[in-house]
Amino acid sequence: MADFDLVVRGGTVASASDVSQCDVGIKDGRIAALGEKLPAGAREIEAAGKLVLPGGIDPHCHIEQQVSSGVMNADTWFTGTTSAACGGTTTVICFAVQKRGEGLAPSVADYRERAKKAVVDYCFHLQVTDPTEAVLNEELPRLIAEGHRSIKLFMTNDAVYLNDRQILEVLAAARANEAMVAVHAESRDAIAFLTDRLLKAGLTGTKYFEWSRHAVVEREAVSRIIALAEIVDQPIQIFHVSAAEAAEEIARAQARGLKVYGETCTQYFLVTAADTDRPGFEGAKYICSPAPRGEANQEALWNLVRTGVLDVVSSDHAPHSYDDPQGKMVHGNNAPFSQVPNGMPGVETRLPVLFSEGVSKGRIDLATFAAITATNPAKVFGLYPKKGAIAVGSDADLAIWDAERRVTITNDLLHHNVDYTPFEGYESIGWPVTTLSRGEVI
Amino acid sequence: MADFDLVVRGGTVASASDVSQCDVGIKDGRIAALGEKLPAGAREIEAAGKLVLPGGIDPHCHIEQQVSSGVMNADTWFTGTTSAACGGTTTVICFAVQKRGEGLAPSVADYRERAKKAVVDYCFHLQVTDPTEAVLNEELPRLIAEGHRSIKLFMTNDAVYLNDRQILEVLAAARANEAMVAVHAESRDAIAFLTDRLLKAGLTGTKYFEWSRHAVVEREAVSRIIALAEIVDQPIQIFHVSAAEAAEEIARAQARGLKVYGETCTQYFLVTAADTDRPGFEGAKYICSPAPRGEANQEALWNLVRTGVLDVVSSDHAPHSYDDPQGKMVHGNNAPFSQVPNGMPGVETRLPVLFSEGVSKGRIDLATFAAITATNPAKVFGLYPKKGAIAVGSDADLAIWDAERRVTITNDLLHHNVDYTPFEGYESIGWPVTTLSRGEVI
Amino acid sequence: MADFDLVVRGGTVASASDVSQCDVGIKDGRIAALGEKLPAGAREIEAAGKLVLPGGIDPHCHIEQQVSSGVMNADTWFTGTTSAACGGTTTVICFAVQKRGEGLAPSVADYRERAKKAVVDYCFHLQVTDPTEAVLNEELPRLIAEGHRSIKLFMTNDAVYLNDRQILEVLAAARANEAMVAVHAESRDAIAFLTDRLLKAGLTGTKYFEWSRHAVVEREAVSRIIALAEIVDQPIQIFHVSAAEAAEEIARAQARGLKVYGETCTQYFLVTAADTDRPGFEGAKYICSPAPRGEANQEALWNLVRTGVLDVVSSDHAPHSYDDPQGKMVHGNNAPFSQVPNGMPGVETRLPVLFSEGVSKGRIDLATFAAITATNPAKVFGLYPKKGAIAVGSDADLAIWDAERRVTITNDLLHHNVDYTPFEGYESIGWPVTTLSRGEVI
Amino acid sequence: MADFDLVVRGGTVASASDVSQCDVGIKDGRIAALGEKLPAGAREIEAAGKLVLPGGIDPHCHIEQQVSSGVMNADTWFTGTTSAACGGTTTVICFAVQKRGEGLAPSVADYRERAKKAVVDYCFHLQVTDPTEAVLNEELPRLIAEGHRSIKLFMTNDAVYLNDRQILEVLAAARANEAMVAVHAESRDAIAFLTDRLLKAGLTGTKYFEWSRHAVVEREAVSRIIALAEIVDQPIQIFHVSAAEAAEEIARAQARGLKVYGETCTQYFLVTAADTDRPGFEGAKYICSPAPRGEANQEALWNLVRTGVLDVVSSDHAPHSYDDPQGKMVHGNNAPFSQVPNGMPGVETRLPVLFSEGVSKGRIDLATFAAITATNPAKVFGLYPKKGAIAVGSDADLAIWDAERRVTITNDLLHHNVDYTPFEGYESIGWPVTTLSRGEVI
Repeated sequence: MADFDLVVRGGTVASASDVSQCDVGIKDGRIAALGEKLPAGAREIEAAGKLVLPGGIDPHCHIEQQVSSGVMNADTWFTGTTSAACGGTTTVICFAVQKRGEGLAPSVADYRERAKKAVVDYCFHLQVTDPTEAVLNEELPRLIAEGHRSIKLFMTNDAVYLNDRQILEVLAAARANEAMVAVHAESRDAIAFLTDRLLKAGLTGTKYFEWSRHAVVEREAVSRIIALAEIVDQPIQIFHVSAAEAAEEIARAQARGLKVYGETCTQYFLVTAADTDRPGFEGAKYICSPAPRGEANQEALWNLVRTGVLDVVSSDHAPHSYDDPQGKMVHGNNAPFSQVPNGMPGVETRLPVLFSEGVSKGRIDLATFAAITATNPAKVFGLYPKKGAIAVGSDADLAIWDAERRVTITNDLLHHNVDYTPFEGYESIGWPVTTLSRGEVI
Repeated sequence: MADFDLVVRGGTVASASDVSQCDVGIKDGRIAALGEKLPAGAREIEAAGKLVLPGGIDPHCHIEQQVSSGVMNADTWFTGTTSAACGGTTTVICFAVQKRGEGLAPSVADYRERAKKAVVDYCFHLQVTDPTEAVLNEELPRLIAEGHRSIKLFMTNDAVYLNDRQILEVLAAARANEAMVAVHAESRDAIAFLTDRLLKAGLTGTKYFEWSRHAVVEREAVSRIIALAEIVDQPIQIFHVSAAEAAEEIARAQARGLKVYGETCTQYFLVTAADTDRPGFEGAKYICSPAPRGEANQEALWNLVRTGVLDVVSSDHAPHSYDDPQGKMVHGNNAPFSQVPNGMPGVETRLPVLFSEGVSKGRIDLATFAAITATNPAKVFGLYPKKGAIAVGSDADLAIWDAERRVTITNDLLHHNVDYTPFEGYESIGWPVTTLSRGEVI
Repeated sequence: MADFDLVVRGGTVASASDVSQCDVGIKDGRIAALGEKLPAGAREIEAAGKLVLPGGIDPHCHIEQQVSSGVMNADTWFTGTTSAACGGTTTVICFAVQKRGEGLAPSVADYRERAKKAVVDYCFHLQVTDPTEAVLNEELPRLIAEGHRSIKLFMTNDAVYLNDRQILEVLAAARANEAMVAVHAESRDAIAFLTDRLLKAGLTGTKYFEWSRHAVVEREAVSRIIALAEIVDQPIQIFHVSAAEAAEEIARAQARGLKVYGETCTQYFLVTAADTDRPGFEGAKYICSPAPRGEANQEALWNLVRTGVLDVVSSDHAPHSYDDPQGKMVHGNNAPFSQVPNGMPGVETRLPVLFSEGVSKGRIDLATFAAITATNPAKVFGLYPKKGAIAVGSDADLAIWDAERRVTITNDLLHHNVDYTPFEGYESIGWPVTTLSRGEVI
Repeated sequence: MADFDLVVRGGTVASASDVSQCDVGIKDGRIAALGEKLPAGAREIEAAGKLVLPGGIDPHCHIEQQVSSGVMNADTWFTGTTSAACGGTTTVICFAVQKRGEGLAPSVADYRERAKKAVVDYCFHLQVTDPTEAVLNEELPRLIAEGHRSIKLFMTNDAVYLNDRQILEVLAAARANEAMVAVHAESRDAIAFLTDRLLKAGLTGTKYFEWSRHAVVEREAVSRIIALAEIVDQPIQIFHVSAAEAAEEIARAQARGLKVYGETCTQYFLVTAADTDRPGFEGAKYICSPAPRGEANQEALWNLVRTGVLDVVSSDHAPHSYDDPQGKMVHGNNAPFSQVPNGMPGVETRLPVLFSEGVSKGRIDLATFAAITATNPAKVFGLYPKKGAIAVGSDADLAIWDAERRVTITNDLLHHNVDYTPFEGYESIGWPVTTLSRGEVI
């Protein structure tokens, strides 16, 4: 038996199915053993009374990316992944976005270069914005063969949007090359129509953001992408499902046997459309797409998680500072809702807030928490079993949690490069106290 | 009491709710009285032992129209409406199709001119193919004010297709002007993708037509147009629903309170996808869109009619001769499925075949037959109560049926200008023996 | 043409499908003609500016019946049917209830005797409470052959309840003899359990009535009776559907092709569970079973009526005076909810209130009103076409309505023998001003 | 680190979420470590190239029990558990059945005595057949406090059936004492009615068994028990779901947030109703309740397992020999279907056949197999984490599988005390080669 480089001792270790009391022996960055009274390691971490969970996998982070509204994310690879690590996350999946008129490979190469500053592991979704023959027949096959496992598509957002025919071509390419496809599903045309009507009517405040993309806009696109995937027989994951109506379409697809998966985000359990109507321009902080919905929707989302219709909870970390001419106020502090960069930061708060609302409040059990934050995203996006599991042979990506610790979240506490958090003042019950990436404390 | 010009005496008179034994007294082309032992009219028609039904309203006929595949319908207004009348139909609704780059009004004017040859009453759906500002803000309001009651949209078919944004603009215009909207709902992009793949694979035979537009293609578009209508809060009718899966979307919309109506066509109760695989090029006769489905689908359609999810049965009369270089063989007798003009003739057979399959075989009652073939289309498209009812004051558009007469349908029997009927050899139980348009026997 | 005994002149005549301006010519109690400018009758009623509707058929009235809680209905056949007539109703269907240990025939004979005091037409549901071999094999066949068309069953209520095996036997007898079956569907055992627990907990007030039979109790029984009817392939009507959840089961049954019909009652559109919590013992006035539900349920019921899932609206007239030791206070003015006689009066208010809420407020059209209050119940229970239609040959049962008249309902205004109405103070827009039974003004 | 009594070396170890290559170190009958290159144990089992799965938990076995048809199970505790072990199962849950007129405790005591012959671990469902006050208020609380975790109810079967009121009382007692409730859900009255009619019509052959309890009988009872559980807010598991229609009710309950779980059995994936129509009396071998359904139902069941609607697959081992006057032929070899003892043997074949059909044929993955055969039943019935997991601290109940081994099942091969297997001739791909109970090879 190998000498351990590190032993995490005496914790309550949880996987996506099992919870046990044991030591975790680590060697060469991998989990070498789980056991009672393992021999001493070169180093030891005492975890008695603590939880040892798989390090979070956040499959949906925007980091150091020029987003479609033109601004850059506030977080660099360094700040973003530091923030992730401090929130118990050990792997992030970000977006290598094709520039229209160019191939995918340059974006991937460029992004890979930038990503070297990362302090946790990472990989990329290949975001196709211009599915030329070359992209479909040469670049995707090659990139997938090189190890990229997933493609990202937008159904809305003029800068990155694909039409249905293009989507079908990409889905077919994914199927031929055995990659997963993740989709931002909202109806571009409906949003454009509604936005246009609202702006013309002078309804420009942040609260109208949700009016411009209410639940039917999301449900329609979800229904459509499921049909397109059904035509090609390609598995898909619907990103950041916000509305229970949209999730119902996913459930129906699953019930007829389709491989359709759903992700939601921590904020959708807590933020509501009402937050976008905060006084002044404050509502801008809560603008993200799909839009937050009403309160009744939130309990519905919990049940959708419990029944497995939605099996991943990500952050959709989209860091833009509020009081920042390169952030939420890029078009001023009175900009119409349609010109506010979308998204909110969350890579660091995703796990604590979800743990607190889910596990501490009894809505989900520990194994489900491990599943939706680590094991399931790893499986959906091809990282498993190297990532996402506390199992012998897997990378020693671990988060040690104090389930009792109460932390009142303030932005000062966080490590992202953003000037606000949507969870300001939230008291989290449970907190990740130590994060290990391949056996190293971060 | 007015002297009657005509009395239809002693028949069994059916409306969409009631069946009674009585005479029908007609004056000046309108129904002046229903009664027992009405006084003698200037003329009399003996209807004892016969059924007196409202003249059929066929809200979906292509007559003397250049269709999107480029060819002209084989039927002129004279032959088409003669055929209608011989099949018990007294009103047809046809399509005044906007030419792209032009306004709607010229098409309407031109079509109105041609329609003067009609032997039964008619009106037009305004088919918008290019929703310019002028069309939306000037022509539609004016034409609707002049009495046109409905707009037609295509979601597929390159020559006439509207994208989702255009559809929303038209729906909004319809709402502002209080017109009905009827929709051909199939996914253009999915059809194009599938067709392309099939043709490239050498699968060009007529049987592949249904492969290129299977039920999911229909269901997707139905789901989408319902969402678009929901956004604008505009009533719509889904034309020619073929697949029970698509109808399920309509039922769900109705259950949540939306004004969404569904039409199907007589052929979908009898023709199946298997017919498109008849030997040689014969399958071309049965190519229509949406495509005919399987047998199990047919019993499902009956129940959808009984529960009112689908409340109109039309013909989608689309007359193209088979052995005709301007018809089904416009691209030869071995053309790929994608180049065969769509549609089949049916304005004359719609009612007899539906009566036979529906009423004679006990699937629906007489009142339902009257409802789905006359009263409901009249109500949906604003012709009621002038049309679609056997009620005092309504036009005396009547069809007198012999419910016992057995007629084996052959094309020779029919009055359309087409060289085949999809119902060749079908023995119909029940036949319309006399048709009256505004009190005049046709 | 016969000389008319009576002509109702110039009204707006509505059937379940059609609305027209015409005179109604009546001879020998039947409608002899509908027409413009009919010749003068022996008598004339001027109806210009008024509506002429089919006289209401109230298929669910408890009149001069000893109900299961032991008390007698406050209304006799004379007062009850007078009240009906004054509310525009011309036919009532009441309950000939088998006494356990006896056959059905004596009850029918006795009830027929009492009913001679009726001032409108009537017939009986045969309420089976003890399905002996004699009842199933001799009495039901004979009574049905004699013209009785429907059987009533209770799934709850100890005094009249049938267990599932008995229900199956009755359904099978109904099928063999071609009678309709109407069902009071609530789960007896669940109600007993909940009642017992509530009473033991000291929760005895009227507001707990709904707690003792909440929606799941209704939905379960509806789901069960549908299954039993499916096994035997027998059409059924679910009486007085109160909860949208229960109606959903009916909709699902209809969607899979079963002949399952649903009735609801006027009060379920207006009374809510909150009314049973009125101060003092006032809540007792609103105790009826199934219990009134919440407000959201009411808009759901309207849509269920519009989509035809529920196609009859009755009164479930159950007259028990409030301040009456033989009525609501039979066990005192502080009795536990479980000892309060169920039901509320409504035979006179059913149509005005429904007209006002439905037609005047734009929720349903006139034809639908005629359908759900007259034509549909006539068809469901075999009275059609003699009853339920304004059609030549049908009985001249008519209600003439002033659609504009505003009447504030007070109990003084009503003709029932009850000391309250649940609609006290309700301002009805639209009122039946004249009622004719077989051509005679009542 | 403890010296291991046994090391299972080099296998592919699967839990309900994870699959890894590692050794399993066992000490004192429990799993002490999972790791790479664990130190040598006192004994070693070479598992390279093999799968190491959690020993199966079969939560539904009838062993040495006098069943309601009066006969004894053919298997004793010794033969039954030997058979289980040879099929990779290490825990069985059997039924301690209350005798009516007696309490539960004597049955438990008696059954515990008999069970001493078992060669694997076991526990009991407390089957309540007579829920007296003493049972509800004294025995159940005491037995549950002593460690029994589950109650079993029958909704059919005269000898053991509870009515709805009794069921509610037991559910309430379960909730008060925090026990799980498992339910045999079929409608007693419907079965009795149908059986009676079939027998009277002379339709007595084995094929009519399914006619007497077709899917609607199952769906109705499932719908009903869900409602009863909803009233009391008590988690339940529906045993042996056979019909997809019944599972749909479970899915609907889960979607509205109820804790309703579903079990199915291996035979329902392979045996169909057609098997009950085998020549002679052979069909009797396949008589079990609920009845096997059609082929289309089988693919539906797989998807229900994949989506988690059904999360346990048991055997419902019900051993009655075929050619045996104390078995299937207790009433002769020509007995009517209603007199044939229900059930088929399966404790030994459950896992191999399910593995072969599920894992080997690609319908489910290894983790799902571990979940539905071990982890989930352990969690549902309170045995977890001691049982059902390959995790540190859990009992070393393991099954070592050769995933490649092909075995043609014949009854000779099996260790049960029954003269047939429903899977005679089935070629299983994958076979459990070694079974360990608490670290001891059986």
